[in-house]
Amino acid sequence: MPNYVVGHKIPDSDSICSAIALAYLKTTLGEPTVPARLGELSPETLFILDKFGFEQPELKTSYAGESLYIVDHSDRVQGPDDIDQATILGIIDHHKLGDLTTSTPLECWIRPVGCTNTIIKMMYDFHDVAIPKDIAGAMMCAILSDTVIFKSPTCTTADIKCVEALAEIAGIEDPQELGMDMFKVKSAVEGTPVRDLVLRDFKDFNMNGNLVGIGQLEVIDLAIFDEMKADLEADIIKLKQEGKRHTVILLLTDIMKEGSEFLVVSDDAAIIERAYDVTLTDNKVWIDGVLSRKKQVVPPLQDAFA
Amino acid sequence: MPNYVVGHKIPDSDSICSAIALAYLKTTLGEPTVPARLGELSPETLFILDKFGFEQPELKTSYAGESLYIVDHSDRVQGPDDIDQATILGIIDHHKLGDLTTSTPLECWIRPVGCTNTIIKMMYDFHDVAIPKDIAGAMMCAILSDTVIFKSPTCTTADIKCVEALAEIAGIEDPQELGMDMFKVKSAVEGTPVRDLVLRDFKDFNMNGNLVGIGQLEVIDLAIFDEMKADLEADIIKLKQEGKRHTVILLLTDIMKEGSEFLVVSDDAAIIERAYDVTLTDNKVWIDGVLSRKKQVVPPLQDAFA
Ligand SMILES: [Mn+2]
Ligand SMILES: [Mn+2]
Repeated sequence: MPNYVVGHKIPDSDSICSAIALAYLKTTLGEPTVPARLGELSPETLFILDKFGFEQPELKTSYAGESLYIVDHSDRVQGPDDIDQATILGIIDHHKLGDLTTSTPLECWIRPVGCTNTIIKMMYDFHDVAIPKDIAGAMMCAILSDTVIFKSPTCTTADIKCVEALAEIAGIEDPQELGMDMFKVKSAVEGTPVRDLVLRDFKDFNMNGNLVGIGQLEVIDLAIFDEMKADLEADIIKLKQEGKRHTVILLLTDIMKEGSEFLVVSDDAAIIERAYDVTLTDNKVWIDGVLSRKKQVVPPLQDAFA
Repeated sequence: MPNYVVGHKIPDSDSICSAIALAYLKTTLGEPTVPARLGELSPETLFILDKFGFEQPELKTSYAGESLYIVDHSDRVQGPDDIDQATILGIIDHHKLGDLTTSTPLECWIRPVGCTNTIIKMMYDFHDVAIPKDIAGAMMCAILSDTVIFKSPTCTTADIKCVEALAEIAGIEDPQELGMDMFKVKSAVEGTPVRDLVLRDFKDFNMNGNLVGIGQLEVIDLAIFDEMKADLEADIIKLKQEGKRHTVILLLTDIMKEGSEFLVVSDDAAIIERAYDVTLTDNKVWIDGVLSRKKQVVPPLQDAFA
């Protein structure tokens, strides 16, 4: 029976590429390991898998009785629902430490860097295992995605150096150009149902007892939303009502202009204005420099609710 | 304001030596960091500090408002009581993953090896920092202690190789001989109050709602307990009553004969007999091969209680 590697629910490119890369490393080290996923893949991730010739990892949501590695999260709510009946062999992650616990010793590689794949590269180096060309390419793309091509405030020099080394292995001359191609795919939102867009990268947070949902769409030109913005605004109003949320924010992030338009629906809009020191106009505001939900959007709002 | 490194309550040699070693590494990397301790040191640890010329780390039990690294544990109950008001920068450990959480990304080096200092050595190697002679000696002794000079079932080849490398740096020709000297110090129990001995390395466990206390004394010749065994037995009866415990077990571990005598006081001695498949005589039994509380004593008892 092989071991598994799985990332978080609503998988992003980091969760998928790190599962593939870690499964290869562990298998090479003599421990047969299979990458898996908890949900459907985004167009960006499908672009990466296609580009480097990978199949989609197995869709597997139940892990009772299995042994597995967890990547790109350490919060119970984000992982497999039956994790308590599984054996966690290790955790590789770059977020805050969540509430997963184990009953046996394990392997944790957690670092405050921009992407899980940057840490997986450290693991290859530690074990002195050569990274295959196609895996290096996928890892590199995941880092470019998580760091918004190095523009995110979560990006570290370790991430930049890692992309350089992986590009060398993958034989890619201009990683940033490939990163832009990838964000173009991510930006192709036309024809996608509005609700699918709103939920493409959506996370709920409990802020001092209030349910706050924050979605994010990262594109290379916000003009793409001009025709559908009214529909997006109408849909987050519905989403707020359906989920009995206090607030829903949808971030329309322009990775070239390096900022985000906030679409807001809230029981108390003043709290949003206070959190970011802005004034909403028609429930919208552009904030220069905001690229990271994790580092720039959640903490000030959590403080405003506290 | 410097950062701190601190190990668990009732500090052992691993908690103290890894705090000293990590503080030096972090300080060398440009992050002023101070080793600390949560309690009084054992004769074994004092022997190590004296041998390599270290002062005792600062006794510091409150960390509100401070930033710190946690070593040799990741369970709330074992660490500083006000940890929720502190910032955890990282965790270096070799136990199961406990219930500590953080609100910000951090650095975790957790590995299923025999000693935290084996992991600290990996950190020095990763950062390409030379380990000073005296620190190498202290780290080496901690590994010899945690692995019972390589005899514990928790010992891995990584621990053995690490001791070899550290001995080379520290200029110690025969690490195992030094290990024996250390265990001789640990074995010098005469003149110590009985209660101090019982609590020297004592941990409580919640087993299916029952409070179970398990202490361990590791010595090089069990004969040392001949004259005081009756007093030890009388004291664990008192300890059981005082703490309203279901069971207290005191392990008298002979590291040369490689086994442990179990002194048992329990509301249901049959559960102990079933857990280890033995018959108690006068509430005592010798079990061949048992050296590790973590790996050989706790799990079967937890299963028997389940
Ligand atoms: Mn990630
Ligand atoms: Mn230890």
